[in-house]
Amino acid sequence: MTLSIYLSGEIHTDWREQIIEGARDLDVTFAAPVTDHAASDDCGVVILGEEPDKFWHDHKGAKVNAIRTRKGIEDADIVVVRFGEKYKQWNAAFDAGMAAAMGKSLIILQQPEHDHALKEVDAAALAVTRTPAEVVEILRYVLTGTLPS
Amino acid sequence: MTLSIYLSGEIHTDWREQIIEGARDLDVTFAAPVTDHAASDDCGVVILGEEPDKFWHDHKGAKVNAIRTRKGIEDADIVVVRFGEKYKQWNAAFDAGMAAAMGKSLIILQQPEHDHALKEVDAAALAVTRTPAEVVEILRYVLTGTLPS
Amino acid sequence: MTLSIYLSGEIHTDWREQIIEGARDLDVTFAAPVTDHAASDDCGVVILGEEPDKFWHDHKGAKVNAIRTRKGIEDADIVVVRFGEKYKQWNAAFDAGMAAAMGKSLIILQQPEHDHALKEVDAAALAVTRTPAEVVEILRYVLTGTLPS
Amino acid sequence: MTLSIYLSGEIHTDWREQIIEGARDLDVTFAAPVTDHAASDDCGVVILGEEPDKFWHDHKGAKVNAIRTRKGIEDADIVVVRFGEKYKQWNAAFDAGMAAAMGKSLIILQQPEHDHALKEVDAAALAVTRTPAEVVEILRYVLTGTLPS
Amino acid sequence: MTLSIYLSGEIHTDWREQIIEGARDLDVTFAAPVTDHAASDDCGVVILGEEPDKFWHDHKGAKVNAIRTRKGIEDADIVVVRFGEKYKQWNAAFDAGMAAAMGKSLIILQQPEHDHALKEVDAAALAVTRTPAEVVEILRYVLTGTLPS
Amino acid sequence: MTLSIYLSGEIHTDWREQIIEGARDLDVTFAAPVTDHAASDDCGVVILGEEPDKFWHDHKGAKVNAIRTRKGIEDADIVVVRFGEKYKQWNAAFDAGMAAAMGKSLIILQQPEHDHALKEVDAAALAVTRTPAEVVEILRYVLTGTLPS
Amino acid sequence: MTLSIYLSGEIHTDWREQIIEGARDLDVTFAAPVTDHAASDDCGVVILGEEPDKFWHDHKGAKVNAIRTRKGIEDADIVVVRFGEKYKQWNAAFDAGMAAAMGKSLIILQQPEHDHALKEVDAAALAVTRTPAEVVEILRYVLTGTLPS
Amino acid sequence: MTLSIYLSGEIHTDWREQIIEGARDLDVTFAAPVTDHAASDDCGVVILGEEPDKFWHDHKGAKVNAIRTRKGIEDADIVVVRFGEKYKQWNAAFDAGMAAAMGKSLIILQQPEHDHALKEVDAAALAVTRTPAEVVEILRYVLTGTLPS
Repeated sequence: MTLSIYLSGEIHTDWREQIIEGARDLDVTFAAPVTDHAASDDCGVVILGEEPDKFWHDHKGAKVNAIRTRKGIEDADIVVVRFGEKYKQWNAAFDAGMAAAMGKSLIILQQPEHDHALKEVDAAALAVTRTPAEVVEILRYVLTGTLPS
Repeated sequence: MTLSIYLSGEIHTDWREQIIEGARDLDVTFAAPVTDHAASDDCGVVILGEEPDKFWHDHKGAKVNAIRTRKGIEDADIVVVRFGEKYKQWNAAFDAGMAAAMGKSLIILQQPEHDHALKEVDAAALAVTRTPAEVVEILRYVLTGTLPS
Repeated sequence: MTLSIYLSGEIHTDWREQIIEGARDLDVTFAAPVTDHAASDDCGVVILGEEPDKFWHDHKGAKVNAIRTRKGIEDADIVVVRFGEKYKQWNAAFDAGMAAAMGKSLIILQQPEHDHALKEVDAAALAVTRTPAEVVEILRYVLTGTLPS
Repeated sequence: MTLSIYLSGEIHTDWREQIIEGARDLDVTFAAPVTDHAASDDCGVVILGEEPDKFWHDHKGAKVNAIRTRKGIEDADIVVVRFGEKYKQWNAAFDAGMAAAMGKSLIILQQPEHDHALKEVDAAALAVTRTPAEVVEILRYVLTGTLPS
Repeated sequence: MTLSIYLSGEIHTDWREQIIEGARDLDVTFAAPVTDHAASDDCGVVILGEEPDKFWHDHKGAKVNAIRTRKGIEDADIVVVRFGEKYKQWNAAFDAGMAAAMGKSLIILQQPEHDHALKEVDAAALAVTRTPAEVVEILRYVLTGTLPS
Repeated sequence: MTLSIYLSGEIHTDWREQIIEGARDLDVTFAAPVTDHAASDDCGVVILGEEPDKFWHDHKGAKVNAIRTRKGIEDADIVVVRFGEKYKQWNAAFDAGMAAAMGKSLIILQQPEHDHALKEVDAAALAVTRTPAEVVEILRYVLTGTLPS
Repeated sequence: MTLSIYLSGEIHTDWREQIIEGARDLDVTFAAPVTDHAASDDCGVVILGEEPDKFWHDHKGAKVNAIRTRKGIEDADIVVVRFGEKYKQWNAAFDAGMAAAMGKSLIILQQPEHDHALKEVDAAALAVTRTPAEVVEILRYVLTGTLPS
Repeated sequence: MTLSIYLSGEIHTDWREQIIEGARDLDVTFAAPVTDHAASDDCGVVILGEEPDKFWHDHKGAKVNAIRTRKGIEDADIVVVRFGEKYKQWNAAFDAGMAAAMGKSLIILQQPEHDHALKEVDAAALAVTRTPAEVVEILRYVLTGTLPS
């Protein structure tokens, strides 16, 4: 059994690297959005031409990024969505909604202070985790049946 | 043609009433989440029994509310998602993600200050509106072909 | 909003009647399996001819009953599955599995002594209830936003 | 033709090993739930934190296990469900229901004393077997056209 | 519960009328192909213009008839397929295959002399009947729980 | 049997009126795009605000119109697509492609001079017609089995 | 591009071998039912136990064979269905119906004398061929763009 | 992440070669229709026999080509549709409609003079490009996160 995992959400800390590193010995593949914030914001206009209106600047970029997001979520068995300390992160919740509607196994990674705000998202998840290490432990258990000692 | 519309998101202003009132003469049906904040938060424990742990308190309630949300979105032709001025509103973005994945026509209602934060959600929408009146004008046009004079 | 509800599972107590009676004033429709035990067991051979082998006797009946079960679950928004005190009730769990895979909202009705044995089924449900009255209260809340006082 | 097979149900005898051993020379892949009973029961709380309430203890574990079950059933061409002599085994019937609704080929492995209780499940199956050897013979025939001599 | 039923297959005897008459008091709706043999054969060329080549004559007609067949099967809860004494009746078996793949409840109506030739079709059915009266008895039982006395 | 029909394509002649008039006595419902050319082109900017760039002017309008098109095609049993004498009419072919992928019965209405250019579209259709009267005759035959005398 | 092809239907001539031999140099994989007539008829009872009633004898076998058929059709890009000179061959038409409903590309292989009887099946096909060589030429053209010289 | 791309539309310039050449170092696979115009037009009659009527000549060919188109689009993550300077190109718009309905990521490649005529198609796309180089830059960005310098 190989698990395909999409790592959605917050892009300002190294949580993805921690999970990938921790799962190094497991039969998993990872996908993720482009995490270079500037490239992600500007990809639309850099490739397809400048827009004087910021709304369309963002729009073109968001659609180009959607090609990658859609592929990543569709191919995934598990979608891990990380909500960080800052920002609105509506795209993270949007990805979670898409994943839920597509029947993907959803794992949320968030701090307790957001429990109430995330209750609808958490209610659709198969696990609510607090640390990247917990995500890794779930992957290890799901693949090998082994629990942390 | 009858349009079924689900009104998702912010529950602290009267935007739903404005849309329903404005569309009074149109062939539309509306559904929405329970907008009584206290009832929505406590429905799980009031019906199914108290929980000492706030996480499970929220969890039980979020799942009961999901019965209504799921029904409302599945039955809808159009899902209108309102992002207000305050709070995280991750459930609104989650609903938008579900609606997008289910192929529903998505209309977003939000102020320009959130344009950048909502760019991924807006990119999946068929209209980004600023006022309830604009939503009504879209419904009127879609059903009757009439534009505001 | 009208809710279609399929009442699956145990057929030896009056739990269905209690729910239907309690929801009399709500915008709901109910469906259920044939609850006449003898008719349900014998429908195959009575209509389609005797079978000397009990396995095929049961097989013919189970398939005729499946016409009704399949229709009831497919049409439902909510599938309520009742696990009683006695018997294996594998058909109840089978219905729950079908309902879950079809994306129906699942409500389980069972006593605490079965919590451990039903944990996988409960994990797929949006509510685990203990009495028919709780099921009614959920239906009332989902449709009207009203909680029991 | 390679067949992917999910082996669901009873975890207290070596029926899985018998099938895997018997099918050693066939073009098949097998998946199964975690069969270490203690790990399976406790995986939720060991990874995600203790719960004072047994219901939530079970709930967390059942959801983590569901990640593996869902993947196993979705990837399978054939789902074999074994009902043993003891226990309620509602999760086995639940898996069978999911498999049936997802259009998987279903093979049931059970003793004649359960024929009547399993008639609805059996009615959805493509084969009702009595021994692991019969399951192997079906796999061999399906893949190679060879019958036992 | 209302059942929608599509009556597919043989068009030279009055089996459809017998079923419709027998089910007069039940909550059912019936659909069927055009049973006027000449009209069914010629509809394509009469409406869309003559074809010198019999193959295209038939082709145009078969496609126009497919509009009705497809609608009838898609709307149906139950597809009854009647195999008569004569002719190849490949369209009946084709309809049965479509109905099976679309998850419809399939009832076959055929004489025992065709049991062997129809074994694959029968294996996908929920009932194999010998007379229109048996079909009616199934419909009555499924809708009302009543067995013939 | 009631047929729902979406009338897609050319908006400069009265072919829709001819079909609706001809089918006045049949059990059919019709839907269609907004056929007021100016309203259709400008709906986006009139409702949602002016755009200096013609591309985004068109974009906003096309998306608002898509709400109606999507609803019309999804609700349809039959999609009739009319290709007229002039213009590129790529939206007509686009609607035809969507209808085909969604399994709708497709009827094309076009003149012989376009046969070669439309061969891929025609190949996915159940009828290629030359006049609105032929479309009406198909609807009449499909619903009543009656051919033109 | 690799094409997966399921070869359904008649089992008394070597048409499968001719196609497989002709397509030796192409990027294709083939699957087919068990073509050993005796094994196919008896597989159910040989593996799962004798049945005194021929109907159940056939039934058990047909279901075991359905495991292979279902897998073969689901995995296929193209389903080729051969109707031979003799027998009812309802299983061939049933397979064609399933393939059509599942959106598979359907190629029929049959002699002109059956054109009228197969018109509904042919109307759902993308090609009606007369010889195994024509099937091979289609596969070669689809994969390489090369036509027979 | 490997991206599967179908290159649909105009066959008279070397835009496909430019994209394939530009993406040489990327983890992509390409599929496309047969671009030999004469072979594409005549494949039906060359393989399956002459037709005196040009309509059926085209029809047979279009259906054989549909086997390849359908496979190419179904397997694709991204469908690029090129609209050239000349011809009606309704098959390109038809492919775009199918791709949109199947949830594929759609990239349009067209000149500004066609913006108005393509507004409905563009509204369903995730990028509207002007040159093959822009398509390549999108593929590179989606796969590697790298923007053109």
